[in-house]
Amino acid sequence: MDFKEALLTKTEEIEAIIKSYLPREDGFQKTILEAMNYSILAGGKRLRPMLMQETYRMFGGKGEIINPFMVAIEMIHTYSLVHDDLPAMDNDQYRRGKETTWAKFGEDMGILCGDALLNYAFETAAQAFSLPEADANTGKAFQILANKAGIYGMIGGQVVDVQAVGMPLERKRLDFIYALKTGALIEASMMVGAVLAGAEEALVERISQVALDVGLAFQIQDDILDVTSTLEVLGKPIHSDDKNEKTTYVTLEGLEKAKKDVERISRRAMESLGSLPCENPFLLELIEMLITREK
Amino acid sequence: MDFKEALLTKTEEIEAIIKSYLPREDGFQKTILEAMNYSILAGGKRLRPMLMQETYRMFGGKGEIINPFMVAIEMIHTYSLVHDDLPAMDNDQYRRGKETTWAKFGEDMGILCGDALLNYAFETAAQAFSLPEADANTGKAFQILANKAGIYGMIGGQVVDVQAVGMPLERKRLDFIYALKTGALIEASMMVGAVLAGAEEALVERISQVALDVGLAFQIQDDILDVTSTLEVLGKPIHSDDKNEKTTYVTLEGLEKAKKDVERISRRAMESLGSLPCENPFLLELIEMLITREK
Repeated sequence: MDFKEALLTKTEEIEAIIKSYLPREDGFQKTILEAMNYSILAGGKRLRPMLMQETYRMFGGKGEIINPFMVAIEMIHTYSLVHDDLPAMDNDQYRRGKETTWAKFGEDMGILCGDALLNYAFETAAQAFSLPEADANTGKAFQILANKAGIYGMIGGQVVDVQAVGMPLERKRLDFIYALKTGALIEASMMVGAVLAGAEEALVERISQVALDVGLAFQIQDDILDVTSTLEVLGKPIHSDDKNEKTTYVTLEGLEKAKKDVERISRRAMESLGSLPCENPFLLELIEMLITREK
Repeated sequence: MDFKEALLTKTEEIEAIIKSYLPREDGFQKTILEAMNYSILAGGKRLRPMLMQETYRMFGGKGEIINPFMVAIEMIHTYSLVHDDLPAMDNDQYRRGKETTWAKFGEDMGILCGDALLNYAFETAAQAFSLPEADANTGKAFQILANKAGIYGMIGGQVVDVQAVGMPLERKRLDFIYALKTGALIEASMMVGAVLAGAEEALVERISQVALDVGLAFQIQDDILDVTSTLEVLGKPIHSDDKNEKTTYVTLEGLEKAKKDVERISRRAMESLGSLPCENPFLLELIEMLITREK
Protein backbone atom coordinates (compact mmCIF):
# COMPACT_ATOMS: atom_id res chain seq x y z
CA MET A 1 0.00 0.00 0.00
CA ASP A 2 1.46 3.38 -0.88
CA PHE A 3 1.75 6.17 1.68
CA LYS A 4 -1.22 8.23 0.55
CA GLU A 5 -3.51 5.24 0.62
CA ALA A 6 -2.26 4.20 4.06
CA LEU A 7 -2.72 7.76 5.29
CA LEU A 8 -6.33 7.77 4.13
CA THR A 9 -7.12 4.41 5.71
CA LYS A 10 -5.50 5.35 9.01
CA THR A 11 -7.29 8.72 9.07
CA GLU A 12 -10.61 6.94 8.61
CA GLU A 13 -9.77 4.50 11.39
CA ILE A 14 -8.97 7.37 13.73
CA GLU A 15 -12.17 9.17 12.70
CA ALA A 16 -14.14 6.07 13.72
CA ILE A 17 -12.35 5.84 17.07
CA ILE A 18 -13.07 9.51 17.77
CA LYS A 19 -16.74 9.11 16.88
CA SER A 20 -17.09 6.13 19.21
CA TYR A 21 -16.14 8.34 22.16
CA LEU A 22 -18.36 11.34 21.41
CA PRO A 23 -21.29 12.12 23.72
CA ARG A 24 -24.85 11.28 22.63
CA GLU A 25 -26.83 14.39 21.83
CA ASP A 26 -29.67 14.12 24.32
CA GLY A 27 -30.75 15.41 27.72
CA PHE A 28 -31.42 18.96 28.93
CA GLN A 29 -27.82 19.89 28.09
CA LYS A 30 -28.23 18.80 24.46
CA THR A 31 -27.02 22.11 22.99
CA ILE A 32 -23.55 21.76 24.44
CA LEU A 33 -23.30 18.15 23.26
CA GLU A 34 -24.22 19.28 19.76
CA ALA A 35 -21.68 22.10 19.93
CA MET A 36 -18.95 19.69 21.07
CA ASN A 37 -19.63 17.19 18.31
CA TYR A 38 -19.95 19.96 15.74
CA SER A 39 -16.54 21.32 16.76
CA ILE A 40 -14.80 17.94 16.80
CA LEU A 41 -16.32 16.81 13.50
CA ALA A 42 -15.64 20.08 11.66
CA GLY A 43 -12.64 18.47 9.98
CA GLY A 44 -8.94 18.42 10.63
CA LYS A 45 -6.11 16.11 9.72
CA ARG A 46 -6.20 14.16 13.01
CA LEU A 47 -2.46 14.65 13.01
CA ARG A 48 -1.96 14.45 16.77
CA PRO A 49 -3.83 11.16 17.32
CA MET A 50 -2.02 9.74 14.31
CA LEU A 51 1.42 10.69 15.64
CA MET A 52 0.41 9.19 18.98
CA GLN A 53 -0.80 5.92 17.48
CA GLU A 54 2.18 5.53 15.17
CA THR A 55 4.68 6.21 17.95
CA TYR A 56 2.83 3.70 20.12
CA ARG A 57 3.08 1.11 17.34
CA MET A 58 6.72 1.89 16.69
CA PHE A 59 7.52 0.95 20.27
CA GLY A 60 5.56 -2.28 19.95
CA GLY A 61 2.25 -1.10 21.45
CA LYS A 62 -0.66 -3.33 20.41
CA GLY A 63 -3.41 -2.56 22.93
CA GLU A 64 -6.58 -0.49 23.11
CA ILE A 65 -5.35 1.77 25.90
CA ILE A 66 -4.04 4.24 23.34
CA ASN A 67 -7.55 4.94 22.03
CA PRO A 68 -8.92 7.16 24.83
CA PHE A 69 -5.66 9.13 24.79
CA MET A 70 -5.87 9.63 21.01
CA VAL A 71 -9.37 11.01 21.38
CA ALA A 72 -8.34 13.15 24.34
CA ILE A 73 -5.53 14.92 22.50
CA GLU A 74 -7.80 15.71 19.56
CA MET A 75 -10.37 17.14 21.99
CA ILE A 76 -7.72 19.32 23.60
CA HIS A 77 -6.58 20.54 20.20
CA THR A 78 -10.21 21.25 19.25
CA TYR A 79 -11.08 23.14 22.44
CA SER A 80 -8.04 25.36 21.90
CA LEU A 81 -9.35 26.27 18.43
CA VAL A 82 -12.88 26.88 19.76
CA HIS A 83 -11.59 29.33 22.37
CA ASP A 84 -9.07 30.85 19.91
CA ASP A 85 -11.92 31.78 17.58
CA LEU A 86 -13.92 33.66 20.25
CA PRO A 87 -14.63 37.38 19.73
CA ALA A 88 -12.34 38.33 22.62
CA MET A 89 -9.53 36.29 21.05
CA ASP A 90 -9.10 36.05 17.23
CA ASN A 91 -12.76 36.88 16.51
CA ASP A 92 -13.03 34.38 13.65
CA GLN A 93 -16.44 33.55 12.22
CA TYR A 94 -15.27 30.85 9.87
CA ARG A 95 -12.78 28.01 10.08
CA ARG A 96 -12.22 25.53 7.26
CA GLY A 97 -15.19 27.06 5.43
CA LYS A 98 -17.60 26.38 8.30
CA GLU A 99 -19.01 28.67 10.94
CA THR A 100 -16.92 28.64 14.10
CA THR A 101 -18.55 27.22 17.21
CA TRP A 102 -19.39 30.55 18.83
CA ALA A 103 -20.69 31.96 15.54
CA LYS A 104 -23.08 29.03 15.25
CA PHE A 105 -24.06 28.44 18.89
CA GLY A 106 -23.52 31.88 20.48
CA GLU A 107 -20.61 33.30 22.40
CA ASP A 108 -21.67 31.86 25.78
CA MET A 109 -21.94 28.36 24.30
CA GLY A 110 -18.58 28.88 22.57
CA ILE A 111 -16.95 29.44 25.94
CA LEU A 112 -18.79 26.55 27.59
CA CYS A 113 -18.14 24.24 24.65
CA GLY A 114 -14.40 24.80 24.93
CA ASP A 115 -14.58 24.13 28.67
CA ALA A 116 -16.65 21.02 28.03
CA LEU A 117 -14.20 19.68 25.44
CA LEU A 118 -11.20 20.25 27.68
CA ASN A 119 -12.92 18.57 30.60
CA TYR A 120 -14.21 15.74 28.41
CA ALA A 121 -10.69 15.18 27.10
CA PHE A 122 -9.53 14.36 30.61
CA GLU A 123 -12.66 12.31 31.33
CA THR A 124 -11.96 10.33 28.18
CA ALA A 125 -8.27 9.77 28.92
CA ALA A 126 -9.20 8.78 32.48
CA GLN A 127 -11.31 5.93 31.08
CA ALA A 128 -7.95 4.25 30.48
CA PHE A 129 -7.64 3.66 34.23
CA SER A 130 -10.54 1.20 34.03
CA LEU A 131 -8.96 -0.92 31.28
CA PRO A 132 -7.32 -4.24 32.21
CA GLU A 133 -4.14 -2.99 30.49
CA ALA A 134 -3.83 -0.04 32.92
CA ASP A 135 -0.54 0.12 34.82
CA ALA A 136 1.88 2.71 36.20
CA ASN A 137 2.50 3.99 32.66
CA THR A 138 -1.15 5.03 32.38
CA GLY A 139 -0.69 7.56 35.17
CA LYS A 140 2.56 8.78 33.61
CA ALA A 141 0.93 9.20 30.21
CA PHE A 142 -1.90 11.12 31.84
CA GLN A 143 0.55 13.46 33.55
CA ILE A 144 2.34 14.16 30.27
CA LEU A 145 -0.93 14.89 28.48
CA ALA A 146 -2.09 17.27 31.21
CA ASN A 147 1.26 19.04 31.57
CA LYS A 148 1.79 19.60 27.86
CA ALA A 149 -1.71 21.05 27.49
CA GLY A 150 -1.32 23.52 30.35
CA ILE A 151 0.56 26.64 31.41
CA TYR A 152 3.93 24.97 30.84
CA GLY A 153 2.68 23.69 27.50
CA MET A 154 0.06 24.79 24.99
CA ILE A 155 -1.78 27.38 27.12
CA GLY A 156 1.52 28.95 28.15
CA GLY A 157 2.46 29.40 24.50
CA GLN A 158 -0.98 30.68 23.65
CA VAL A 159 -0.85 33.37 26.34
CA VAL A 160 2.50 34.69 25.16
CA ASP A 161 1.30 34.59 21.54
CA VAL A 162 -1.85 36.57 22.38
CA GLN A 163 0.21 39.17 24.23
CA ALA A 164 2.71 39.42 21.37
CA VAL A 165 0.24 40.64 18.74
CA GLY A 166 1.26 44.01 17.34
CA MET A 167 4.60 44.23 19.12
CA PRO A 168 8.10 43.33 18.02
CA LEU A 169 9.19 39.93 19.21
CA GLU A 170 12.68 38.76 20.02
CA ARG A 171 13.86 35.33 18.88
CA LYS A 172 13.84 33.84 22.40
CA ARG A 173 10.17 34.68 22.89
CA LEU A 174 9.27 33.38 19.43
CA ASP A 175 11.03 30.08 20.19
CA PHE A 176 9.06 29.86 23.42
CA ILE A 177 5.75 30.38 21.59
CA TYR A 178 6.59 27.83 18.90
CA ALA A 179 7.82 25.21 21.35
CA LEU A 180 4.77 25.58 23.57
CA LYS A 181 1.86 26.65 21.40
CA THR A 182 2.54 24.26 18.52
CA GLY A 183 5.23 21.96 19.89
CA ALA A 184 3.78 20.88 23.21
CA LEU A 185 0.77 18.93 21.89
CA ILE A 186 2.93 17.20 19.26
CA GLU A 187 5.35 16.38 22.04
CA ALA A 188 2.49 15.05 24.17
CA SER A 189 1.21 12.95 21.26
CA MET A 190 4.50 11.19 20.63
CA MET A 191 5.53 10.92 24.29
CA VAL A 192 2.19 9.44 25.36
CA GLY A 193 2.46 6.89 22.53
CA ALA A 194 5.96 5.92 23.65
CA VAL A 195 5.12 5.79 27.37
CA LEU A 196 1.98 3.68 26.91
CA ALA A 197 3.98 1.23 24.79
CA GLY A 198 6.41 0.91 27.69
CA ALA A 199 9.39 2.67 26.09
CA GLU A 200 12.23 3.28 28.53
CA GLU A 201 12.79 6.78 29.85
CA ALA A 202 15.83 7.64 27.72
CA LEU A 203 13.90 6.81 24.57
CA VAL A 204 10.88 8.85 25.71
CA GLU A 205 13.30 11.76 26.14
CA ARG A 206 14.58 11.22 22.57
CA ILE A 207 11.01 11.15 21.28
CA SER A 208 10.24 14.38 23.11
CA GLN A 209 13.15 16.07 21.32
CA VAL A 210 12.10 14.66 17.95
CA ALA A 211 8.56 15.91 18.54
CA LEU A 212 9.76 19.40 19.44
CA ASP A 213 11.79 19.48 16.22
CA VAL A 214 8.78 18.29 14.23
CA GLY A 215 6.59 20.96 15.81
CA LEU A 216 9.16 23.66 15.16
CA ALA A 217 9.75 22.65 11.53
CA PHE A 218 5.99 22.40 11.03
CA GLN A 219 5.47 25.91 12.38
CA ILE A 220 8.30 27.48 10.38
CA GLN A 221 6.94 25.79 7.26
CA ASP A 222 3.60 27.43 8.11
CA ASP A 223 5.29 30.82 8.23
CA ILE A 224 7.02 30.13 4.89
CA LEU A 225 3.81 29.08 3.17
CA ASP A 226 2.06 32.21 4.43
CA VAL A 227 4.58 34.19 2.36
CA THR A 228 5.24 31.94 -0.63
CA SER A 229 1.98 30.12 -1.33
CA THR A 230 -1.22 31.26 -3.01
CA LEU A 231 -4.80 31.39 -1.77
CA GLU A 232 -5.69 28.62 -4.23
CA VAL A 233 -3.00 26.18 -3.05
CA LEU A 234 -3.20 26.98 0.66
CA GLY A 235 -6.99 27.11 0.85
CA LYS A 236 -6.78 30.11 3.20
CA PRO A 237 -5.68 33.74 2.80
CA ILE A 238 -1.92 34.22 2.53
CA HIS A 239 0.05 37.12 4.06
CA SER A 240 -2.20 36.76 7.13
CA ASP A 241 0.78 37.14 9.48
CA ASP A 242 1.68 40.43 7.84
CA LYS A 243 -1.91 41.65 8.08
CA ASN A 244 -2.10 40.63 11.76
CA GLU A 245 1.24 42.37 12.44
CA LYS A 246 2.70 39.09 13.59
CA THR A 247 6.39 38.51 14.02
CA THR A 248 7.21 35.11 12.53
CA TYR A 249 10.32 33.06 11.95
CA VAL A 250 10.37 34.43 8.40
CA THR A 251 10.09 38.11 9.36
CA LEU A 252 12.78 37.59 11.99
CA GLU A 253 15.28 35.42 10.11
CA GLY A 254 14.39 35.95 6.45
CA LEU A 255 12.92 33.49 3.97
CA GLU A 256 16.16 31.83 2.95
CA LYS A 257 17.36 31.06 6.45
CA ALA A 258 13.86 29.87 7.38
CA LYS A 259 13.92 27.39 4.50
CA LYS A 260 17.39 26.17 5.44
CA ASP A 261 16.38 25.79 9.08
CA VAL A 262 13.29 23.73 8.25
CA GLU A 263 15.61 21.50 6.23
CA ARG A 264 18.18 21.25 9.03
CA ILE A 265 15.69 20.71 11.85
CA SER A 266 13.74 18.07 9.97
CA ARG A 267 16.91 16.20 9.01
CA ARG A 268 17.89 16.17 12.68
CA ALA A 269 14.46 14.81 13.68
CA MET A 270 14.43 12.14 10.98
CA GLU A 271 17.96 11.00 11.81
CA SER A 272 17.17 10.74 15.49
CA LEU A 273 14.00 8.80 14.76
CA GLY A 274 15.77 6.59 12.21
CA SER A 275 18.48 5.61 14.67
CA LEU A 276 16.11 4.23 17.30
CA PRO A 277 16.23 0.48 18.09
CA CYS A 278 12.73 0.17 16.60
CA GLU A 279 11.19 1.59 13.45
CA ASN A 280 7.97 2.64 11.78
CA PRO A 281 8.42 3.62 8.13
CA PHE A 282 4.93 5.14 7.98
CA LEU A 283 5.76 7.49 10.86
CA LEU A 284 8.89 8.66 9.04
CA GLU A 285 6.91 9.35 5.89
CA LEU A 286 4.17 11.10 7.87
CA ILE A 287 6.65 13.46 9.48
CA GLU A 288 8.35 14.15 6.16
CA MET A 289 4.98 14.99 4.65
CA LEU A 290 4.16 17.38 7.48
CA ILE A 291 7.37 19.27 7.11
CA THR A 292 7.66 19.43 3.32
CA ARG A 293 3.96 20.08 2.77
CA GLU A 294 2.85 22.73 0.26
CA LYS A 295 -0.37 23.53 2.08
CA MET B 1 -12.11 23.24 70.62
CA ASP B 2 -15.47 24.64 69.60
CA PHE B 3 -16.75 24.37 66.02
CA LYS B 4 -16.04 27.93 64.92
CA GLU B 5 -12.47 27.72 66.13
CA ALA B 6 -11.96 24.37 64.43
CA LEU B 7 -13.48 25.74 61.23
CA LEU B 8 -11.03 28.63 61.26
CA THR B 9 -8.01 26.41 61.88
CA LYS B 10 -9.03 23.93 59.19
CA THR B 11 -9.68 26.72 56.69
CA GLU B 12 -6.20 28.09 57.31
CA GLU B 13 -4.68 24.63 56.87
CA ILE B 14 -6.48 24.23 53.55
CA GLU B 15 -5.39 27.70 52.48
CA ALA B 16 -1.78 26.68 53.10
CA ILE B 17 -2.19 23.46 51.11
CA ILE B 18 -3.71 25.37 48.19
CA LYS B 19 -0.89 27.92 48.24
CA SER B 20 1.74 25.19 48.18
CA TYR B 21 0.40 23.96 44.82
CA LEU B 22 0.08 27.32 43.06
CA PRO B 23 2.39 28.10 40.13
CA ARG B 24 5.33 30.48 40.60
CA GLU B 25 4.74 33.77 38.86
CA ASP B 26 7.66 33.85 36.44
CA GLY B 27 8.54 33.12 32.82
CA PHE B 28 7.19 34.63 29.61
CA GLN B 29 3.69 33.45 30.54
CA LYS B 30 3.80 35.33 33.87
CA THR B 31 0.51 37.19 33.27
CA ILE B 32 -1.56 34.03 33.21
CA LEU B 33 0.15 32.71 36.35
CA GLU B 34 -0.67 35.98 38.11
CA ALA B 35 -4.26 35.80 36.89
CA MET B 36 -4.60 32.20 38.13
CA ASN B 37 -3.25 32.99 41.57
CA TYR B 38 -5.30 36.19 41.77
CA SER B 39 -8.46 34.20 41.02
CA ILE B 40 -7.72 31.39 43.43
CA LEU B 41 -6.67 33.70 46.26
CA ALA B 42 -9.63 36.09 45.85
CA GLY B 43 -11.32 34.45 48.82
CA GLY B 44 -13.95 31.79 49.25
CA LYS B 45 -14.92 29.44 52.03
CA ARG B 46 -12.87 26.49 50.68
CA LEU B 47 -16.01 24.49 51.27
CA ARG B 48 -15.36 21.80 48.67
CA PRO B 49 -11.81 20.90 49.76
CA MET B 50 -13.04 20.89 53.35
CA LEU B 51 -15.90 18.51 52.60
CA MET B 52 -13.43 16.31 50.74
CA GLN B 53 -10.89 16.26 53.53
CA GLU B 54 -13.46 15.66 56.25
CA THR B 55 -15.11 12.82 54.34
CA TYR B 56 -11.66 11.32 53.76
CA ARG B 57 -10.94 11.51 57.48
CA MET B 58 -14.34 10.10 58.40
CA PHE B 59 -13.50 6.95 56.44
CA GLY B 60 -10.14 6.68 58.16
CA GLY B 61 -7.98 8.38 55.51
CA LYS B 62 -4.67 9.63 56.94
CA GLY B 63 -2.44 10.15 53.89
CA GLU B 64 -1.26 13.03 51.74
CA ILE B 65 -2.89 11.78 48.55
CA ILE B 66 -6.00 13.80 49.34
CA ASN B 67 -4.07 17.10 49.06
CA PRO B 68 -3.71 17.36 45.26
CA PHE B 69 -7.38 16.45 44.89
CA MET B 70 -8.44 19.12 47.41
CA VAL B 71 -6.54 21.73 45.45
CA ALA B 72 -7.90 20.42 42.15
CA ILE B 73 -11.55 20.75 43.17
CA GLU B 74 -11.01 24.31 44.38
CA MET B 75 -9.33 25.15 41.04
CA ILE B 76 -12.28 23.69 39.14
CA HIS B 77 -14.71 25.69 41.26
CA THR B 78 -12.61 28.82 40.68
CA TYR B 79 -12.32 28.40 36.90
CA SER B 80 -16.11 28.04 36.71
CA LEU B 81 -16.51 31.40 38.47
CA VAL B 82 -13.88 33.05 36.25
CA HIS B 83 -15.72 31.96 33.10
CA ASP B 84 -19.14 32.71 34.64
CA ASP B 85 -18.11 36.32 35.18
CA LEU B 86 -17.08 36.89 31.52
CA PRO B 87 -18.92 39.57 29.51
CA ALA B 88 -20.55 36.93 27.28
CA MET B 89 -21.81 35.12 30.40
CA ASP B 90 -22.92 37.04 33.53
CA ASN B 91 -20.82 40.11 32.70
CA ASP B 92 -19.79 40.72 36.32
CA GLN B 93 -17.04 43.20 37.07
CA TYR B 94 -16.86 42.55 40.78
CA ARG B 95 -16.96 39.43 42.92
CA ARG B 96 -16.58 39.51 46.70
CA GLY B 97 -15.70 43.20 46.45
CA LYS B 98 -12.76 42.59 44.12
CA GLU B 99 -12.43 43.01 40.38
CA THR B 100 -13.24 39.83 38.52
CA THR B 101 -10.40 38.19 36.61
CA TRP B 102 -11.41 39.45 33.15
CA ALA B 103 -12.05 42.96 34.52
CA LYS B 104 -8.53 43.07 35.92
CA PHE B 105 -6.56 41.15 33.27
CA GLY B 106 -8.67 41.64 30.12
CA GLU B 107 -11.28 39.44 28.50
CA ASP B 108 -8.79 37.29 26.57
CA MET B 109 -6.82 36.56 29.72
CA GLY B 110 -10.10 35.83 31.53
CA ILE B 111 -10.86 33.10 29.03
CA LEU B 112 -7.31 31.72 29.07
CA CYS B 113 -7.10 31.91 32.87
CA GLY B 114 -10.23 29.76 33.21
CA ASP B 115 -8.77 27.26 30.74
CA ALA B 116 -5.47 27.29 32.59
CA LEU B 117 -7.14 26.69 35.97
CA LEU B 118 -9.22 23.80 34.65
CA ASN B 119 -6.20 22.21 33.02
CA TYR B 120 -4.02 22.86 36.09
CA ALA B 121 -6.67 21.22 38.27
CA PHE B 122 -6.21 17.97 36.38
CA GLU B 123 -2.43 18.38 36.32
CA THR B 124 -2.52 18.83 40.07
CA ALA B 125 -4.80 15.87 40.74
CA ALA B 126 -2.62 13.76 38.41
CA GLN B 127 0.35 14.41 40.67
CA ALA B 128 -1.32 11.87 42.96
CA PHE B 129 -0.30 9.11 40.54
CA SER B 130 3.35 9.71 41.46
CA LEU B 131 2.78 9.32 45.23
CA PRO B 132 3.77 6.05 46.91
CA GLU B 133 0.18 5.82 48.24
CA ALA B 134 -1.25 5.68 44.69
CA ASP B 135 -3.39 2.62 43.95
CA ALA B 136 -6.46 1.65 41.91
CA ASN B 137 -8.56 4.09 43.98
CA THR B 138 -6.49 7.00 42.69
CA GLY B 139 -7.70 6.34 39.14
CA LYS B 140 -11.28 5.95 40.39
CA ALA B 141 -11.12 9.21 42.33
CA PHE B 142 -9.74 10.92 39.25
CA GLN B 143 -12.60 9.64 37.11
CA ILE B 144 -15.18 10.89 39.62
CA LEU B 145 -13.57 14.33 39.76
CA ALA B 146 -13.47 14.62 35.96
CA ASN B 147 -17.00 13.29 35.42
CA LYS B 148 -18.64 15.51 38.03
CA ALA B 149 -16.94 18.60 36.58
CA GLY B 150 -18.06 17.91 33.02
CA ILE B 151 -21.12 17.74 30.78
CA TYR B 152 -22.80 15.17 33.02
CA GLY B 153 -21.90 17.29 36.04
CA MET B 154 -21.17 20.96 36.65
CA ILE B 155 -20.83 22.13 33.04
CA GLY B 156 -24.04 20.32 32.09
CA GLY B 157 -25.92 22.19 34.82
CA GLN B 158 -24.28 25.46 33.87
CA VAL B 159 -25.36 25.13 30.24
CA VAL B 160 -28.99 24.52 31.15
CA ASP B 161 -28.88 27.37 33.67
CA VAL B 162 -27.49 29.80 31.08
CA GLN B 163 -30.18 28.78 28.59
CA ALA B 164 -32.93 29.13 31.21
CA VAL B 165 -32.44 32.85 31.89
CA GLY B 166 -35.60 34.81 31.19
CA MET B 167 -37.83 31.84 30.50
CA PRO B 168 -40.22 29.90 32.71
CA LEU B 169 -38.67 26.76 34.14
CA GLU B 170 -40.41 23.54 35.06
CA ARG B 171 -39.48 21.74 38.27
CA LYS B 172 -37.70 18.87 36.49
CA ARG B 173 -35.32 21.22 34.73
CA LEU B 174 -34.70 23.19 37.92
CA ASP B 175 -33.85 19.96 39.76
CA PHE B 176 -31.44 19.09 36.95
CA ILE B 177 -29.70 22.47 37.24
CA TYR B 178 -29.42 22.26 41.03
CA ALA B 179 -28.19 18.67 41.03
CA LEU B 180 -25.56 19.38 38.39
CA LYS B 181 -24.53 23.01 38.70
CA THR B 182 -24.29 23.09 42.49
CA GLY B 183 -24.61 19.45 43.49
CA ALA B 184 -22.04 17.76 41.27
CA LEU B 185 -18.91 19.38 42.72
CA ILE B 186 -20.12 18.77 46.28
CA GLU B 187 -20.79 15.18 45.25
CA ALA B 188 -17.30 14.95 43.75
CA SER B 189 -15.76 16.39 46.91
CA MET B 190 -17.34 13.88 49.25
CA MET B 191 -17.08 10.91 46.88
CA VAL B 192 -13.38 11.50 46.16
CA GLY B 193 -12.74 11.73 49.91
CA ALA B 194 -14.53 8.43 50.48
CA VAL B 195 -12.90 6.62 47.53
CA LEU B 196 -9.37 7.72 48.40
CA ALA B 197 -9.90 6.53 51.98
CA GLY B 198 -10.84 3.12 50.56
CA ALA B 199 -14.56 3.20 51.43
CA GLU B 200 -16.49 0.32 49.90
CA GLU B 201 -18.73 0.98 46.92
CA ALA B 202 -22.07 0.88 48.74
CA LEU B 203 -20.86 3.54 51.17
CA VAL B 204 -19.53 5.73 48.36
CA GLU B 205 -23.03 5.52 46.86
CA ARG B 206 -24.53 6.62 50.18
CA ILE B 207 -22.09 9.52 50.37
CA SER B 208 -23.03 10.55 46.84
CA GLN B 209 -26.70 10.75 47.89
CA VAL B 210 -25.86 12.71 51.03
CA ALA B 211 -23.78 15.13 48.98
CA LEU B 212 -26.59 15.67 46.48
CA ASP B 213 -28.95 16.44 49.36
CA VAL B 214 -26.43 18.84 50.87
CA GLY B 215 -26.03 20.58 47.52
CA LEU B 216 -29.76 20.83 47.01
CA ALA B 217 -30.48 22.14 50.53
CA PHE B 218 -27.59 24.60 50.15
CA GLN B 219 -29.01 25.90 46.88
CA ILE B 220 -32.59 26.21 48.14
CA GLN B 221 -31.26 28.05 51.20
CA ASP B 222 -29.52 30.39 48.75
CA ASP B 223 -32.85 31.05 47.02
CA ILE B 224 -34.54 31.66 50.39
CA LEU B 225 -31.88 34.11 51.57
CA ASP B 226 -32.15 36.02 48.29
CA VAL B 227 -35.77 36.77 49.28
CA THR B 228 -35.61 37.02 53.07
CA SER B 229 -32.20 38.47 53.92
CA THR B 230 -30.86 42.00 53.74
CA LEU B 231 -27.93 43.48 51.85
CA GLU B 232 -26.18 44.09 55.20
CA VAL B 233 -26.44 40.48 56.41
CA LEU B 234 -25.86 38.77 53.06
CA GLY B 235 -23.04 41.03 51.92
CA LYS B 236 -24.45 41.05 48.38
CA PRO B 237 -27.60 42.50 46.77
CA ILE B 238 -30.82 40.62 47.58
CA HIS B 239 -33.67 40.02 45.13
CA SER B 240 -31.02 39.34 42.48
CA ASP B 241 -32.95 36.30 41.16
CA ASP B 242 -36.02 38.45 40.63
CA LYS B 243 -33.96 41.10 38.85
CA ASN B 244 -32.34 38.45 36.66
CA GLU B 245 -35.76 36.93 35.89
CA LYS B 246 -34.60 33.67 37.35
CA THR B 247 -36.94 30.87 38.26
CA THR B 248 -35.85 29.51 41.64
CA TYR B 249 -37.10 26.91 44.06
CA VAL B 250 -38.83 29.74 45.96
CA THR B 251 -40.63 31.22 42.94
CA LEU B 252 -41.71 27.73 41.90
CA GLU B 253 -42.75 26.22 45.24
CA GLY B 254 -43.29 29.24 47.48
CA LEU B 255 -41.25 30.37 50.49
CA GLU B 256 -42.98 28.15 53.08
CA LYS B 257 -42.55 24.93 51.14
CA ALA B 258 -38.96 25.89 50.31
CA LYS B 259 -38.20 26.30 54.01
CA LYS B 260 -39.86 22.98 54.86
CA ASP B 261 -37.98 21.21 52.09
CA VAL B 262 -34.59 22.52 53.21
CA GLU B 263 -35.47 21.19 56.65
CA ARG B 264 -36.60 17.80 55.30
CA ILE B 265 -33.71 17.32 52.88
CA SER B 266 -31.09 18.28 55.42
CA ARG B 267 -32.59 15.98 58.05
CA ARG B 268 -32.41 13.14 55.52
CA ALA B 269 -28.77 13.92 54.74
CA MET B 270 -27.78 14.19 58.40
CA GLU B 271 -29.55 10.97 59.33
CA SER B 272 -27.91 9.08 56.49
CA LEU B 273 -24.51 10.43 57.45
CA GLY B 274 -25.13 9.77 61.15
CA SER B 275 -26.00 6.12 60.55
CA LEU B 276 -22.71 5.25 58.81
CA PRO B 277 -20.36 2.78 60.47
CA CYS B 278 -17.88 5.63 60.96
CA GLU B 279 -18.31 9.20 62.13
CA ASN B 280 -16.91 12.70 61.97
CA PRO B 281 -18.74 15.14 64.27
CA PHE B 282 -17.05 18.13 62.62
CA LEU B 283 -18.40 17.11 59.22
CA LEU B 284 -21.93 16.93 60.64
CA GLU B 285 -21.60 20.39 62.16
CA LEU B 286 -20.12 21.75 58.93
CA ILE B 287 -23.04 20.50 56.88
CA GLU B 288 -25.54 21.84 59.40
CA MET B 289 -23.87 25.23 59.23
CA LEU B 290 -24.02 25.25 55.44
CA ILE B 291 -27.69 24.51 55.36
CA THR B 292 -28.91 26.70 58.20
CA ARG B 293 -26.62 29.62 57.34
CA GLU B 294 -27.98 33.16 57.36
CA LYS B 295 -25.57 34.43 54.73
